[in-house]
Amino acid sequence: MTFRIGPDDMEEIALGGAFLGTGGGGDPYIGKLMARSMMLEHGRDVEVVPAAGIADDALCVPVCMMGAPTVMVEKLPSGKEALAALRALEEYLGRKADYLICIEAGGLNSTIPFAVAAHTGLPLLDGDGMGRAFPELQMVSMTLHDIAATPMVIADDKGNSGVLNAVSNLWTERLARAATVEMGGAALVALYPMTGAQAKKGLLHGTLGLVREVGRTLLSERRAHRHPGDALIERCNGVDLCTARVIDIERRTIGGFARGVARLRGMDADHGREFSLSFQNEFLCLEDDQGRPLALTPDLICSLDADGGLPVTTEALRYGLGIRLIGLPADPQWRSPGGQDLAGPKYFGYAHPFQTLEELAGTTRAA
Amino acid sequence: MTFRIGPDDMEEIALGGAFLGTGGGGDPYIGKLMARSMMLEHGRDVEVVPAAGIADDALCVPVCMMGAPTVMVEKLPSGKEALAALRALEEYLGRKADYLICIEAGGLNSTIPFAVAAHTGLPLLDGDGMGRAFPELQMVSMTLHDIAATPMVIADDKGNSGVLNAVSNLWTERLARAATVEMGGAALVALYPMTGAQAKKGLLHGTLGLVREVGRTLLSERRAHRHPGDALIERCNGVDLCTARVIDIERRTIGGFARGVARLRGMDADHGREFSLSFQNEFLCLEDDQGRPLALTPDLICSLDADGGLPVTTEALRYGLGIRLIGLPADPQWRSPGGQDLAGPKYFGYAHPFQTLEELAGTTRAA
Repeated sequence: MTFRIGPDDMEEIALGGAFLGTGGGGDPYIGKLMARSMMLEHGRDVEVVPAAGIADDALCVPVCMMGAPTVMVEKLPSGKEALAALRALEEYLGRKADYLICIEAGGLNSTIPFAVAAHTGLPLLDGDGMGRAFPELQMVSMTLHDIAATPMVIADDKGNSGVLNAVSNLWTERLARAATVEMGGAALVALYPMTGAQAKKGLLHGTLGLVREVGRTLLSERRAHRHPGDALIERCNGVDLCTARVIDIERRTIGGFARGVARLRGMDADHGREFSLSFQNEFLCLEDDQGRPLALTPDLICSLDADGGLPVTTEALRYGLGIRLIGLPADPQWRSPGGQDLAGPKYFGYAHPFQTLEELAGTTRAA
Repeated sequence: MTFRIGPDDMEEIALGGAFLGTGGGGDPYIGKLMARSMMLEHGRDVEVVPAAGIADDALCVPVCMMGAPTVMVEKLPSGKEALAALRALEEYLGRKADYLICIEAGGLNSTIPFAVAAHTGLPLLDGDGMGRAFPELQMVSMTLHDIAATPMVIADDKGNSGVLNAVSNLWTERLARAATVEMGGAALVALYPMTGAQAKKGLLHGTLGLVREVGRTLLSERRAHRHPGDALIERCNGVDLCTARVIDIERRTIGGFARGVARLRGMDADHGREFSLSFQNEFLCLEDDQGRPLALTPDLICSLDADGGLPVTTEALRYGLGIRLIGLPADPQWRSPGGQDLAGPKYFGYAHPFQTLEELAGTTRAA
């Protein structure tokens, strides 16, 4: 089940991460370049290993970028800051990390750990904390398993850094978000240091393998001149939500997040319909023109360019762009009451009670 | 030159600190109670020693509260949080503090270190970093002597804490201020850890003795049924700025600061004149009704109740209150070009170039 990722495999990882990143996490192209450059510089591939086989007392550390994707794509990390964050956390803990972790299977954050892994020679665990991307740092399966986000290190490109210790993962989010905003809207972090035993219990497993598989499907379908939507729906047990063109987009980078709403006008089979797509870094809620929900967080709302079939991130949404939206069922942990409390519609201020994609598909057809 | 401060001396310290605090730093009454209670609980006075005689390799640490005075007086520290901040910094540095320091001779921060000193049994150095109070943490004489504010610990009442390492003292201010705001507007901090050699060079010396003397003068004048203004002007080489009543006050707690402007109407000898008094935590700029400056930061603008003669803090300003404003010359370091860059009118956005109280008194009379 262990696999290796080399410079030429990063395209698959970046594309898979962008699709599962549900619009968030920044441009995968940048992340791909970062990881490739580190792999080539250090002359090594990255080993991705299942958590099941690791020692219970191993130290496993997620490293990632925190901030608004709109800023992250303009304020590129060199890869050195993420390493600096890891090293500072190791120093604070008084021991070296044995494994690195992707905190989320999305955008830059599905690729940055590959860059750090290539730099350090450390293996990556095949898993993540979300099985997708979410905008806030407490929104990880580790929180559902009582694993603390702190001690956490936050570092910026200027050389500023901090070690946080917070009373809850929500407080970690609040304090780290305030620091991120002050640091210019994006920062590099190392957090949720956990033992091997905690990683076995707390991670969503096999998600890096899934990222790679999604990326492969995307590439092979495009090579075969097919839109990858159908194959991805089949592979991921997804729901075809709509194909539509952006007719209005309102966005603000506020409180350290890229927030906004896109209005969409249906095309092809959806001709004559309208949709509203809300996001906070990630796509969180899709409604039809009656205000009825078609897909709700924590289920995944993934987007592909309607023509080319490449993933579309929120910051790339623009007037006239045609997109195909595909819903994927979230991990069962996210659909549990605890998961809904952490990342359901209510937390983000949407009036709709959570319903699964499958339930919503039934409702809409009945209506 | 060493002196001891016991529970019954805290009244003098609190009053002296409130006067030199130039309106900022929170209600001295609260700080007095905190320090008294720690002294009584631990059954000991606090020793205040001149920095001149300490070992060059001693570890000296200022502890203080950071935030908007309007919040600080509603969100009282128990004294334990300041100790927790000190302990966390000691742990990070891997050694125990030998001396405590008052970062500023103002309000709560001239009394909190007495509470921590009583708790720990550590002596306090007779000096501070401002010779007054200033709103931002880089505004200390240590910055003028290239002493770093970090590593710095910031802690709140809930149990959250962080260790910062920043590239400059201005960056420390920015990051710590953002954390303070998120922590609810006030936090306890331990910062500028310095060696004995650095303390000798970087502190303004004898200022705790001055605080006590100002407090004594205030008390003895009041006991003699005299307004303490005249005696304080004589003692501190001050300038009588005006006696006036508050006729309007505009204030906002914003960005972690209490900012505002008070409009004043002259009384007694100043009958017929009007004044405008601007503050950011501390009083920073006094203008007459022609917009001409009468006193400018970094010189001190101290306020006393026009009737009772007790110091008046910015958050106590209210319609109808009569106050007597007294200007004191800042330490020569503050009047230097470097000092003006750090805490002069330009930094705070006032159009007036810095002029000393003495110069302004001459100008106004000439005009």
